[in-house]
Amino acid sequence: MKLLRYGAVGQEKPAMLDAEGRLRDLSKHVNDIAHEVLLPAGLARLAALDPQSLPLVEGSPRIGACVAGSGKFICIGLNYSDHAAETGATVPPEPIVFLKATSAIGGPNDVLEIPRGSTKTDWEVELGVVIGKTAKYVSEADAMDHVAGYCLINDVSERAFQTERQGQWTKGKSADTFGPIGPWLVTPDEVPDPQQLDMWLEVNGVRRQSGSTATMVYGVRYLIAYLSQFMSLRPGDIISTGTPPGVGMGFKPPVYLKRGDVVTLGIEGLGTQRQVATQFD
Amino acid sequence: MKLLRYGAVGQEKPAMLDAEGRLRDLSKHVNDIAHEVLLPAGLARLAALDPQSLPLVEGSPRIGACVAGSGKFICIGLNYSDHAAETGATVPPEPIVFLKATSAIGGPNDVLEIPRGSTKTDWEVELGVVIGKTAKYVSEADAMDHVAGYCLINDVSERAFQTERQGQWTKGKSADTFGPIGPWLVTPDEVPDPQQLDMWLEVNGVRRQSGSTATMVYGVRYLIAYLSQFMSLRPGDIISTGTPPGVGMGFKPPVYLKRGDVVTLGIEGLGTQRQVATQFD
Repeated sequence: MKLLRYGAVGQEKPAMLDAEGRLRDLSKHVNDIAHEVLLPAGLARLAALDPQSLPLVEGSPRIGACVAGSGKFICIGLNYSDHAAETGATVPPEPIVFLKATSAIGGPNDVLEIPRGSTKTDWEVELGVVIGKTAKYVSEADAMDHVAGYCLINDVSERAFQTERQGQWTKGKSADTFGPIGPWLVTPDEVPDPQQLDMWLEVNGVRRQSGSTATMVYGVRYLIAYLSQFMSLRPGDIISTGTPPGVGMGFKPPVYLKRGDVVTLGIEGLGTQRQVATQFD
Repeated sequence: MKLLRYGAVGQEKPAMLDAEGRLRDLSKHVNDIAHEVLLPAGLARLAALDPQSLPLVEGSPRIGACVAGSGKFICIGLNYSDHAAETGATVPPEPIVFLKATSAIGGPNDVLEIPRGSTKTDWEVELGVVIGKTAKYVSEADAMDHVAGYCLINDVSERAFQTERQGQWTKGKSADTFGPIGPWLVTPDEVPDPQQLDMWLEVNGVRRQSGSTATMVYGVRYLIAYLSQFMSLRPGDIISTGTPPGVGMGFKPPVYLKRGDVVTLGIEGLGTQRQVATQFD
């Protein structure tokens, strides 16, 4: 099942994709793709619907973030060994965890705002995991029961804000539009192995990142169990699991986004995103 | 005006304190102390009510976090020069910013859960600022217009998780119950100068922290303007502005919380908190 949200910012309606890739409106069945809708029972209720019985969505509306009401946007740093190498870091002995502001969340094709004064805005294609059941001190064996689904994320990052402006990465990760999520929340039945997904990112049509979740250091199962030792994970929480090689700061010389650049990215089975960069004056 | 939320976890109702310190129920006027209620117009509407006309709350209900629906829980590190000194750090040339998980938020007198495996759970009395109007690239001159009110916060911290478990402080700041907030959201008209508030914290009746917001390095006005350059601040967002000297890790040898310890804390005009520590097995 592929769930999504469409419509103007702040007024998104829930929908699902039918077998032909058309949007079918879910407003009669749920208020939003959020909270209790993400629980196993909520998803089972949606899965029982016949998509053909749902109203077709007319036109080509904006696509919003595929999940709403996320309390946490948790990110994992340096989680691909080859990405760690390109940034000059070694693979950490346990996951590096930081939080991205939930106010950074946006639709997959929304404009990407380069922050005022930024000269080092960078990209990171990542596999996102959306939590569907509260997880607190869960084991690896039970971890996957807590997944509502997967989605594509661009963990947009301002490298100067992140690393040259005093401690903690949050400053470089949290600007508005720095977290495009979606287009779809894809339920686990359609993602038989989240550690075998090809992923890519291009800037102005030039391939910059090519990778696979197969080379992730700490996999989804491990991360859920690990994180749940430090904080409870709740329905709607998002885990962005790290990025493969090819980020802008890894090039010699580094390559960063400028006004008018077009970023496209995708993960196998999870759809694609397209962002046009603008600069906040 | 002192606003608060009372009742069982997840079922809190809004209330205000009357001149005699009694709880007056606001359920007939607002659904919660959250979102648009925090906007200037929302607060003005509550301020126009006659507390004596509101129903008295019976008994002694649990007090919840004083604000709901917070999208971000932003914390400032090492923001008192004397606290920086006790931790062996120097005052940073610009604010250190990190995010605490919003799932850590709890009521001011709720049980404090020492996480499983923790041996270094510590306390931090802090002045909290709750945002009342979206702030993005605001100037210092305009910053204070974005404040809905102030509150007392204990920024509970696990020092081993924070500093010995790989990068980024989030891991040691985000456990459930690590963010008691309240009892009250106190509107700015009752806090004429947020940089002149005495604050204290005791463990088992022994004074551990004594300070004043007067010795804050980066004040509230500066912090709002500063943060708004990196992320938009939205109604309900919380800024915890750092702690004065006297945290457990500053003692020689360090002193940390153990099961049964009682933590009490307060800030002038913002009320007090009391937490009994338990350990999660």
